[in-house]
Amino acid sequence: MKQLALTTLVAVSSLFASLTAEEKTPVDWVNPQIDTVKPRFFYFSSACRPFGLVNLSPDTQPDKTWNSGYRYNDEKIECFSHIHGWQIAGLPVMPLPASGDHKDYASKFSHDDEVVKAGYHKVVLQDHGVTAELTSTMRVGFHRYTYSASDDAHLIIDLSRKLMDHDMLDPEATLRDDKLAIEGSTTMGPTGRRKKNFKVYYVAEFNKPAEAVGDWEDGKVVVNFGKLDEPLLMKVGLSYTSLEGARKNLEAELSHWDFDQVVQESYDHWNEWLGRIQVEGGTDAQKTKFYTDLWHAHLGRRTVSDVDNKYADNTGSETLIRQGKRPHYNFDALWGAQWSLNVLWPMAWPELMDDFADTMVNMYHNGGLIPRGPSGGNYTYVMIGDPASSFFSAAYHKGMRNWDKEAAFAGLMRNAFPGGIRDHAGYETQAYSNGGGMSYYVNRGYVPLKIPKSKGGHRQGAAQTLEYSYQDWCLAQLATSLDRKEEAELLNKRATNYKNVWDAEVGWMRPRKMDGSWHEPFSPINDKGFTSPGFVESASAIYTFYIPHDLNGLAELFGSRDAMAERLNSNFEKAAPVRFIAEHGNHAISWVDYQNQPATGMAHVFSHIGKPWMSQYWVREVLNKTFSDVTPFGGYNGDEDQGQMGALSALMAMGLFDMTGGAAQDPQFDILAPVFDKVTIKLNPDYHKGGEFTIVANNQAPGNCYIQSAKLNGEEWNSFQFPFETFANGGTLELELGPEPNKEWGVK
Amino acid sequence: MKQLALTTLVAVSSLFASLTAEEKTPVDWVNPQIDTVKPRFFYFSSACRPFGLVNLSPDTQPDKTWNSGYRYNDEKIECFSHIHGWQIAGLPVMPLPASGDHKDYASKFSHDDEVVKAGYHKVVLQDHGVTAELTSTMRVGFHRYTYSASDDAHLIIDLSRKLMDHDMLDPEATLRDDKLAIEGSTTMGPTGRRKKNFKVYYVAEFNKPAEAVGDWEDGKVVVNFGKLDEPLLMKVGLSYTSLEGARKNLEAELSHWDFDQVVQESYDHWNEWLGRIQVEGGTDAQKTKFYTDLWHAHLGRRTVSDVDNKYADNTGSETLIRQGKRPHYNFDALWGAQWSLNVLWPMAWPELMDDFADTMVNMYHNGGLIPRGPSGGNYTYVMIGDPASSFFSAAYHKGMRNWDKEAAFAGLMRNAFPGGIRDHAGYETQAYSNGGGMSYYVNRGYVPLKIPKSKGGHRQGAAQTLEYSYQDWCLAQLATSLDRKEEAELLNKRATNYKNVWDAEVGWMRPRKMDGSWHEPFSPINDKGFTSPGFVESASAIYTFYIPHDLNGLAELFGSRDAMAERLNSNFEKAAPVRFIAEHGNHAISWVDYQNQPATGMAHVFSHIGKPWMSQYWVREVLNKTFSDVTPFGGYNGDEDQGQMGALSALMAMGLFDMTGGAAQDPQFDILAPVFDKVTIKLNPDYHKGGEFTIVANNQAPGNCYIQSAKLNGEEWNSFQFPFETFANGGTLELELGPEPNKEWGVK
Repeated sequence: MKQLALTTLVAVSSLFASLTAEEKTPVDWVNPQIDTVKPRFFYFSSACRPFGLVNLSPDTQPDKTWNSGYRYNDEKIECFSHIHGWQIAGLPVMPLPASGDHKDYASKFSHDDEVVKAGYHKVVLQDHGVTAELTSTMRVGFHRYTYSASDDAHLIIDLSRKLMDHDMLDPEATLRDDKLAIEGSTTMGPTGRRKKNFKVYYVAEFNKPAEAVGDWEDGKVVVNFGKLDEPLLMKVGLSYTSLEGARKNLEAELSHWDFDQVVQESYDHWNEWLGRIQVEGGTDAQKTKFYTDLWHAHLGRRTVSDVDNKYADNTGSETLIRQGKRPHYNFDALWGAQWSLNVLWPMAWPELMDDFADTMVNMYHNGGLIPRGPSGGNYTYVMIGDPASSFFSAAYHKGMRNWDKEAAFAGLMRNAFPGGIRDHAGYETQAYSNGGGMSYYVNRGYVPLKIPKSKGGHRQGAAQTLEYSYQDWCLAQLATSLDRKEEAELLNKRATNYKNVWDAEVGWMRPRKMDGSWHEPFSPINDKGFTSPGFVESASAIYTFYIPHDLNGLAELFGSRDAMAERLNSNFEKAAPVRFIAEHGNHAISWVDYQNQPATGMAHVFSHIGKPWMSQYWVREVLNKTFSDVTPFGGYNGDEDQGQMGALSALMAMGLFDMTGGAAQDPQFDILAPVFDKVTIKLNPDYHKGGEFTIVANNQAPGNCYIQSAKLNGEEWNSFQFPFETFANGGTLELELGPEPNKEWGVK
Repeated sequence: MKQLALTTLVAVSSLFASLTAEEKTPVDWVNPQIDTVKPRFFYFSSACRPFGLVNLSPDTQPDKTWNSGYRYNDEKIECFSHIHGWQIAGLPVMPLPASGDHKDYASKFSHDDEVVKAGYHKVVLQDHGVTAELTSTMRVGFHRYTYSASDDAHLIIDLSRKLMDHDMLDPEATLRDDKLAIEGSTTMGPTGRRKKNFKVYYVAEFNKPAEAVGDWEDGKVVVNFGKLDEPLLMKVGLSYTSLEGARKNLEAELSHWDFDQVVQESYDHWNEWLGRIQVEGGTDAQKTKFYTDLWHAHLGRRTVSDVDNKYADNTGSETLIRQGKRPHYNFDALWGAQWSLNVLWPMAWPELMDDFADTMVNMYHNGGLIPRGPSGGNYTYVMIGDPASSFFSAAYHKGMRNWDKEAAFAGLMRNAFPGGIRDHAGYETQAYSNGGGMSYYVNRGYVPLKIPKSKGGHRQGAAQTLEYSYQDWCLAQLATSLDRKEEAELLNKRATNYKNVWDAEVGWMRPRKMDGSWHEPFSPINDKGFTSPGFVESASAIYTFYIPHDLNGLAELFGSRDAMAERLNSNFEKAAPVRFIAEHGNHAISWVDYQNQPATGMAHVFSHIGKPWMSQYWVREVLNKTFSDVTPFGGYNGDEDQGQMGALSALMAMGLFDMTGGAAQDPQFDILAPVFDKVTIKLNPDYHKGGEFTIVANNQAPGNCYIQSAKLNGEEWNSFQFPFETFANGGTLELELGPEPNKEWGVK
């Protein structure tokens, strides 16, 4: 039997053998350990499929939201837990010998013999003498533990352990009569943002019979498998709907015990997803970063529905099990996603736009609001505004329309007025608030500071005004396409509300007070505190440029395109010494901040005001300085935010962008210089008939960030934009690059 | 045993013996047969408690919505059915001998030996030889059938019979093992307005064992009780939540078999409710009408929760059983109730305001919208606008505040913008519509005719604009009281939107077209069709005066108060020959229409523009000509609308009104001449500490409709209004009446 175990190990190791760059497939480039030095709880992932319900990985710091989960510099693994999502966590386990410390069961480990891949994690628990391997299907965690001690093999399933920032309540565990499984449930207590409990059901099946150890009274389930001469295998099926659901998920996805097969399938699964974009040229580090970026873009948002699309709805007073038609997701807000996921997903994974739109429409049906950051089947009111407006408009205009359009539009309209989601301030503690300031926005055309009786966070009126203004434009685009003329007119009017927080005297966007006067004192950045009053995790220096839908209107406020470009350029120059990120995480003193959403369109602004070469320059600078690190100590600068920074970085590397987040009626790609010689995007034939679209960059060299000329499908192309429709029809964009700007090209 | 039956009958008959006027208590004045010549299905009531879940009564025409139910001129009773509510009906039964026609089981009856009371109905089924008596508790129908035939006694429970305008589906019936009960359920199929099924559970208990007859396959349950020498008693407990709920309701409310006791309790129950207002003087007919009015005001809206306040929520994809804290109601829209129920209920039944507010807030929690006409646990989108705005504002300002104020305000704000309840057009067939025109209202300040892509009925922009404008003012009052200043400011601005449909050229309110121009041709009434374009079941002649919150603003549009009074007076003069109602039911050709809500504040308008004596005159004229009939052939003029016309008529008889529907921050009663010498209102001490408030009318005589002078709590009172607060503190309003107007009194 030992022989079999060894064979198995060989099989996996051959999958992850050292490969030459030429031999590598997309998934081989992924490095899950990038920027794991100080991650937030849901950041790290190893044994997980795309948007997997199960995300099984070691936690070195399991009980905090920030700076937690798997941290590269930690010396001990505290547990392996199965859920790492937006406001959700659960089911920590630990294998150890009978003689091991069952109270403090953490174990030392070393990166030396650790293997960390997309879909596979192997680590030696030194204190326990256990080699642990993890893989997964979408909804089943698969563990292989090779115990080396001659002692009995124990396993802890710690159902009551505090995870992230919530307690785990009501542990339920039953050893099945055949002793080959433990079944039960555990309930996530409320967090500050997810106000209601959320229950997770599990079925943990073993390949050896287990004996209960102790009374499990405190929720710490301990079992003994006796002395083992072959690895212990455990399959843990999860479900948020019922124990039956967990059994069903386990049965449907993993009916056998071949661990290596699942590792291989997970590898193939990721390759299918990541391989939809193929790159040639570039450095190994660039490829590593690019595919790790793509991988991130398909991770942190988690499936919460069963194989049959059943999901738990917690929007009402009781938990309801609903039957969906597509997968249902749990995710942090799409705040700022117009400059990342909204652009990336429709290119090669358009079905995701349909899926997420469907999740949001279902929540509207269930709870009356299209959500912003749904978690645990309910609203979390994270951040501000209604980022769904740009998401839906992008989905519609890029041809992903498998969702209830009337319901979505009704819900988005509701969100755009008092009582909708925008009116809910960030993380508000009460369900009814006016912290979003929609009455003010409707009445005055801006949101002032310090709204009386409002509650919640991020009650930062200038930023709210600016984001609402863009979101109004997005919804107006959708309204126009749906032939809802009056709504379009109304929203288009409001889309110019950004002008109401422009202070011509100082020449920056500036918060207004309740009496309408400007907030005093004013500075484009604020070094007095962590946040600048009026701006969300940011400052005027950044939000002043948050007008993606009307940058030329903004240029008029500045007096001219040149004046605006000069100001923006000076922001970038000031931010360059600190790598375009907020120093010490202090967003409010940044001139540019590429570690947080509000700034993430800034480098691309120049193209839209007649200076494409300046965007080409600053985008490349940001990519190189902010997003190029492929070590555990950098790469995303602290908060990758469920694939948003990954998607942005990937777009920069490909040389594509969309300033309006795809929400325009006729969406356009912005063209920039890719770092690869060739980028090939395989189109999904269910949506886009063109087969593939290729970007070729001639005369590629490290400093050659400037586009000299372009051909689109063989014809000379002199715009810095080209239509998404052209892309979707397949073809080639061929760019000539050079070290000096061609200030004629692309100007309009 | 025969002896016992006779004794029982004597007891009931003594309760309803001929009484002198002096002996009569309030309930003795009630005549359920008033205006039953052409009722709608839910109009007639006999064996029913206030807002009873069970409303058991004979149907002579059970399968239509209009001109149906119990019709005075019909010769046959088709069945006794247990539910007569807004879009709900159910459980028809019929006693008959074994030899009777079980297929067409209707029976002749005569009014001669019929006794019809509030809470009791006795009728002889001539074809069946059965004397049927009906009474009820809140949730249990109680039947006493005295069979005269020597034949076996049969009973049909027809679970599949079409009722009102819906089919009855999925009949379930089980004869209990002891043969003393049949239990089961039956499901109301959808109606055009209530789109989802609604299931009702029943337990029918008998005092004799029953044998099944036939196979019940088609849902027609027939049982045989054999030969009876004493009456058959049947208690039918209903519930909308579960069979268990029906059992629980039956047990809690009716654990014995004493029919007469229940009749007595029902009688006492009604007396407690109706006796909260005592009148002296007036004619017998006036008292009959007054107490029948009050009785109507507490009828048609039906309790749908169990004794423990559990109710069915159908707002989502599945039916959910929710636990409420107060009773939950099913009701036709409160459309226009600002001039009837909103004024009447707070006077003596303030707890109702809390109850109905709570029902509406619960629906907001459950389904995302404060409803307009909830039925079957879901929305019906009947009529237009958001009448809840005036209802909640009245409840708040009159001191009934036992509901979630933040949730209510959030819901009402949501309703006041696109995506809320106002945006749902009348009876729309789709859940997502813009028929309410809220985007237009927000964008333009009015709702035009023929909104593109809109669906549903009553898309009548001028009326929508006018009602929204008033509702904005109501919500602004509430916002101000809740210290929501910005919302108040925003809504107060919108409250003047009525001016946007005023055409100064023609001097009437007039619909606008999509391009903003006036609809052509124009006439204040429209004899071309049933409805005038732009006005809801009405015409410009009526809606022009629908500005309850700013009648002096309207007078300015007219040029002067005198000009406005003259115009309104001319409307009344034109309408007088047709008793102030729409001739042949054609609302669109009426100058005044007291058979439908939009006109029901008109006669009271004069007081507010400096001519109280004209209101005194026309209110009395309307009361006498439109609402005084106490025969089966008149009284409410066709559509009493669940107590609205009753409440209005009662208010006119008492000489009280409130033009703003109580929604003002400092609500005022309008004073008019009562028809009674004395009206005493017992205040509910849980809300109003004053004990009672009395209105004394000196020099009462048929023509003396004019107030000469007034004293409020002994002090001379020269305003046509007095504060609700004064009323709630208890006291006396003493009026001197006369046959000629005192044009000085009350003018302001």
